[in-house]
Amino acid sequence: MFELGVVYRNIKRADKAAADGLGKFGSATVHEAMGRVGLLKPYMRPIWPGAQISGTAVTVLLHPGDNWMMHVVAEQIQPGDVVIAACTADNTDGFFGDLLATSFQARGARGLVIDAGCRDVKTLQEMGFPVWSRAISSKGTVKATLGSVNIPVVCAGALVHPGDVVVADDDGVVIVPAGMAQKTLEAAAAREANEGEKRAKLGSGVLGLDMYNMRGPLEKAGLRYID
Amino acid sequence: MFELGVVYRNIKRADKAAADGLGKFGSATVHEAMGRVGLLKPYMRPIWPGAQISGTAVTVLLHPGDNWMMHVVAEQIQPGDVVIAACTADNTDGFFGDLLATSFQARGARGLVIDAGCRDVKTLQEMGFPVWSRAISSKGTVKATLGSVNIPVVCAGALVHPGDVVVADDDGVVIVPAGMAQKTLEAAAAREANEGEKRAKLGSGVLGLDMYNMRGPLEKAGLRYID
Amino acid sequence: MFELGVVYRNIKRADKAAADGLGKFGSATVHEAMGRVGLLKPYMRPIWPGAQISGTAVTVLLHPGDNWMMHVVAEQIQPGDVVIAACTADNTDGFFGDLLATSFQARGARGLVIDAGCRDVKTLQEMGFPVWSRAISSKGTVKATLGSVNIPVVCAGALVHPGDVVVADDDGVVIVPAGMAQKTLEAAAAREANEGEKRAKLGSGVLGLDMYNMRGPLEKAGLRYID
Amino acid sequence: MFELGVVYRNIKRADKAAADGLGKFGSATVHEAMGRVGLLKPYMRPIWPGAQISGTAVTVLLHPGDNWMMHVVAEQIQPGDVVIAACTADNTDGFFGDLLATSFQARGARGLVIDAGCRDVKTLQEMGFPVWSRAISSKGTVKATLGSVNIPVVCAGALVHPGDVVVADDDGVVIVPAGMAQKTLEAAAAREANEGEKRAKLGSGVLGLDMYNMRGPLEKAGLRYID
Amino acid sequence: MFELGVVYRNIKRADKAAADGLGKFGSATVHEAMGRVGLLKPYMRPIWPGAQISGTAVTVLLHPGDNWMMHVVAEQIQPGDVVIAACTADNTDGFFGDLLATSFQARGARGLVIDAGCRDVKTLQEMGFPVWSRAISSKGTVKATLGSVNIPVVCAGALVHPGDVVVADDDGVVIVPAGMAQKTLEAAAAREANEGEKRAKLGSGVLGLDMYNMRGPLEKAGLRYID
Amino acid sequence: MFELGVVYRNIKRADKAAADGLGKFGSATVHEAMGRVGLLKPYMRPIWPGAQISGTAVTVLLHPGDNWMMHVVAEQIQPGDVVIAACTADNTDGFFGDLLATSFQARGARGLVIDAGCRDVKTLQEMGFPVWSRAISSKGTVKATLGSVNIPVVCAGALVHPGDVVVADDDGVVIVPAGMAQKTLEAAAAREANEGEKRAKLGSGVLGLDMYNMRGPLEKAGLRYID
Repeated sequence: MFELGVVYRNIKRADKAAADGLGKFGSATVHEAMGRVGLLKPYMRPIWPGAQISGTAVTVLLHPGDNWMMHVVAEQIQPGDVVIAACTADNTDGFFGDLLATSFQARGARGLVIDAGCRDVKTLQEMGFPVWSRAISSKGTVKATLGSVNIPVVCAGALVHPGDVVVADDDGVVIVPAGMAQKTLEAAAAREANEGEKRAKLGSGVLGLDMYNMRGPLEKAGLRYID
Repeated sequence: MFELGVVYRNIKRADKAAADGLGKFGSATVHEAMGRVGLLKPYMRPIWPGAQISGTAVTVLLHPGDNWMMHVVAEQIQPGDVVIAACTADNTDGFFGDLLATSFQARGARGLVIDAGCRDVKTLQEMGFPVWSRAISSKGTVKATLGSVNIPVVCAGALVHPGDVVVADDDGVVIVPAGMAQKTLEAAAAREANEGEKRAKLGSGVLGLDMYNMRGPLEKAGLRYID
Repeated sequence: MFELGVVYRNIKRADKAAADGLGKFGSATVHEAMGRVGLLKPYMRPIWPGAQISGTAVTVLLHPGDNWMMHVVAEQIQPGDVVIAACTADNTDGFFGDLLATSFQARGARGLVIDAGCRDVKTLQEMGFPVWSRAISSKGTVKATLGSVNIPVVCAGALVHPGDVVVADDDGVVIVPAGMAQKTLEAAAAREANEGEKRAKLGSGVLGLDMYNMRGPLEKAGLRYID
Repeated sequence: MFELGVVYRNIKRADKAAADGLGKFGSATVHEAMGRVGLLKPYMRPIWPGAQISGTAVTVLLHPGDNWMMHVVAEQIQPGDVVIAACTADNTDGFFGDLLATSFQARGARGLVIDAGCRDVKTLQEMGFPVWSRAISSKGTVKATLGSVNIPVVCAGALVHPGDVVVADDDGVVIVPAGMAQKTLEAAAAREANEGEKRAKLGSGVLGLDMYNMRGPLEKAGLRYID
Repeated sequence: MFELGVVYRNIKRADKAAADGLGKFGSATVHEAMGRVGLLKPYMRPIWPGAQISGTAVTVLLHPGDNWMMHVVAEQIQPGDVVIAACTADNTDGFFGDLLATSFQARGARGLVIDAGCRDVKTLQEMGFPVWSRAISSKGTVKATLGSVNIPVVCAGALVHPGDVVVADDDGVVIVPAGMAQKTLEAAAAREANEGEKRAKLGSGVLGLDMYNMRGPLEKAGLRYID
Repeated sequence: MFELGVVYRNIKRADKAAADGLGKFGSATVHEAMGRVGLLKPYMRPIWPGAQISGTAVTVLLHPGDNWMMHVVAEQIQPGDVVIAACTADNTDGFFGDLLATSFQARGARGLVIDAGCRDVKTLQEMGFPVWSRAISSKGTVKATLGSVNIPVVCAGALVHPGDVVVADDDGVVIVPAGMAQKTLEAAAAREANEGEKRAKLGSGVLGLDMYNMRGPLEKAGLRYID
């Protein structure tokens, strides 16, 4: 781990059906289905609203102000992948713009998650290429120092192994380890199964206090009502 | 104040007509009419643009990572209320999503102001349920610790008593103490009365320097023009 | 520099054709054409998406919580200008709203860049008046202390002389010194000249690794591929 | 509440013995004794280490960049008071330095808690005058706008009424409402009564797991040990 | 990974001699020897200056506002360990104070690294128990929710496996994977071997430009000197 | 301005006597004497307490994560200089440690002000070499990209020309343009001339309200006292 100057070409991607299926549930449901772990920090925001994707992670470790490895990772993209870019220090430079997006999209990438900055946001929205980033910045970068591709990285506080499933939408980004993808898919489906019924009840005025049988536990915990 | 584990069921809400009327002026005008106090910190942002609401506050004090009391406060909502949620420590977890929004909306809540995180933002926008929050996050919460409902709280730097008027829009959130609602409504109306005339003058090229008679005071303060 | 209480009425504006021309390229291309300098910090964000402007800078130095000088600077605006507002301390108050925007627009200003807060964002969007700011806040300001107009200022980390060219869009704000406007325009045009060709190549699946001849330098730097 | 331009001269201070007694326990113990409420945000830090004080609050509401009211509040200080300074917007200017400290000290103030900046920190340490602030800054302020003295204020996220007890040390600042001072003092004393015994046990190697009988509840909650 | 509610009792600690040896070099040298990876974010600061430690990691994953697992991890401490505490969301509560420190110290812990808050800092300094934390806060915590002990965690942006070597001092905290400890120790020793000679040269006025033979590369990169 | 890849060897330093004299007054007094301008942002903090220096600026512009130019600037240092290091993007890497400090000190530098990170803080304190920085970090840097030396830079929000006077102490860092050094020295001396008398008065219990004749202006501004 943390090797610099290496590119792993053969990674084991999570099961494609599971990776695709998880995307339909969205990051909040998948995060719950995971047991409330695997989330990137909430400073990671979509650069345009409305995108909801999932895919398998190819990872890249960058140095501040240097996007050389973004070109290296492009070659490792396969259709259905999402690129996860980490940086060795907090940095908001614009590592990624419309030209790289054209290349990533041509390779079949579904999106980019980058713990740094991004630019050309208007064009990226027109292209329908979604990015989750910590900043938007016109600031360009140099191409001088090696990082790595497809090593495990820590991106916005979350550990990502190449091949893990990435689920991203307006609520944030969650990582599902490849080995947990199928089980998490099932758990997510189970969570959603009775959501419609719950929503109908709550919409009709039934309280969560009653629907979830919380009154007893609240009383036991000492909750007092004062008129 | 600051009692934990209590729910006040009977609160005195501000006059409904005043509460409704204040919403038409928006947070900036109401804040000025208040004498430039009562604003929540500007990190509180709407999760979707364009909503402009006002209503009477029901308050809830939460603990970090624990949304149990959101279900307790739901029962105390009356039509025309806005829920104000404070937290005992800075926290960005997603305490609120589409199910709770369905319940709040069914109870007649006009929106939520929460000094913490929120999730399911796309669905909330589709539902037309506005939220002002410090963060958007998929992170779920537990239900383990008692907070309180309808006690005075400090939310994003502002003191809120249950029953106060909440005015929220794209510019931010302002709190009008219930006892000042009528007087503030009148002051806001007075402020706006000649706004149209001012706007017309400024739009025709008249300078604020002249319209507000600032040239004398500026000269007196020592302003020098250099050609 | 840093004189307080002065207004310079005669400033030398950058060549109008160059100033107008630079706007077409956007902040990212212009920043690259400048040699990767001149950018404001990325915390400066547009208050509504989609605006892309350029113009000549008129500058104003403000004190925290005091917008008196905004009225003074209004008189110095000429058609094609962009107002650059700096503040002597970090401050998020709403120094600028729809009335001042009406006045600025009537004077011919194309937009405002303010290292502080702004309000009435919904109306500003309806008016088509773009603002880049560090915050949105309903908080009003007093009119008590002199700053200066058309002195060099540091705005969001960038030095701005009156008359410099301002280029602003969704990616950020870049300042081109007046004396470099023509040369930067040419450099920007040169950069864009073969962008279409590059985009077509990348879109067809050609990798940047090959298009930019990076494989040799990467190998020389020690990059290792592992299967 | 939130009146501007007023000075309340007669405030009801908390019982002096209770106010003095609370200081001996420190902010962490008092905060626990309060039921874990009343703390200022942790960005409030002492400007020099080691001070531990308590006293009765006199409050002042400031505007950003304006320290006029600091001179007004000085007159309201009585021996044993601690000045609590809030600001209507986030601001780091240096509102307070050695001259004001000399005046405050002469009036009997035990310290200052200011949700803004402070300067002359080396001299303040030599004088033995403790300050808790959000920033240290040489930046001076004007004297142009009225705030208020001895109104309730929100300081660093906590509500403070004039006369409340302030407890401050290296761990932070906690506010005890005047009416709860005696009861909190007793609770704090009770908490500390058996701390020595606990410390001796833990120091001898007894685990908190056993001393607090946590093994059962942990097992019940589902904790699994894996060898 | 990311299992909740589990405690791994048998972890493989890094070689003790290597772990002890690395501490002598300090975090900056070890970070360089690692190839410039493995550092925690620089918001992690010592609560008192001057401590320099190393040891083997025992890890704990906490939930915001809940320190129950700190008592669970205490039992897993062996002499020479350093506790690494991560939290599932950003939180500054004071999870750790003098009582837990007494227990940790009695178990042989050399220090604590916690991506959250700490309290009782004065007593901890008197005890000589060093802590690196993101905040200092009097805020207490509850004991309600299970986390885990001795699972891999992400702490302040760095991945830590139980048994890894932790090196911490005034410059920060670096993690050396157990399998790299010996090799990193050798690399660190090699780096320091000629530091004395370098320091003597630089101290005598020899420039780094000459000592490191930088003039050629700088000229080749295009550096121009202007008189 | 903003030329990259250039080193200006001949700069005009401020008058030495004025530069030395300003240091005795400290940053707060000098900032006031300047008319309250010229301050670096308060996030710039000394890495060890108690240093108070002044000197003439030699400037260096760095790129994030790259300290190559620190070696270039070393050669341009003359006795009595203070190095001012700016960075083209926000970055906290440790650009400077004990070896560079040894070199800078040998050249006669009195200190470093760097809008980035610094390391080896314990050794720097032992050497008596003061640094003001935005961060402390063990993170090392590469040597790959050219910046510039002795061009005007924006450092932590302040414009610095080579040769300007730098005044730095525990309260912060202020820049005095070379051409204003003598006049500012005189203004600072005048400010301090009657400080002793003021301090004595305030220490005896005279209020600032009376000493500065504020009661009239406060009454005129509308201040009301309520008993």
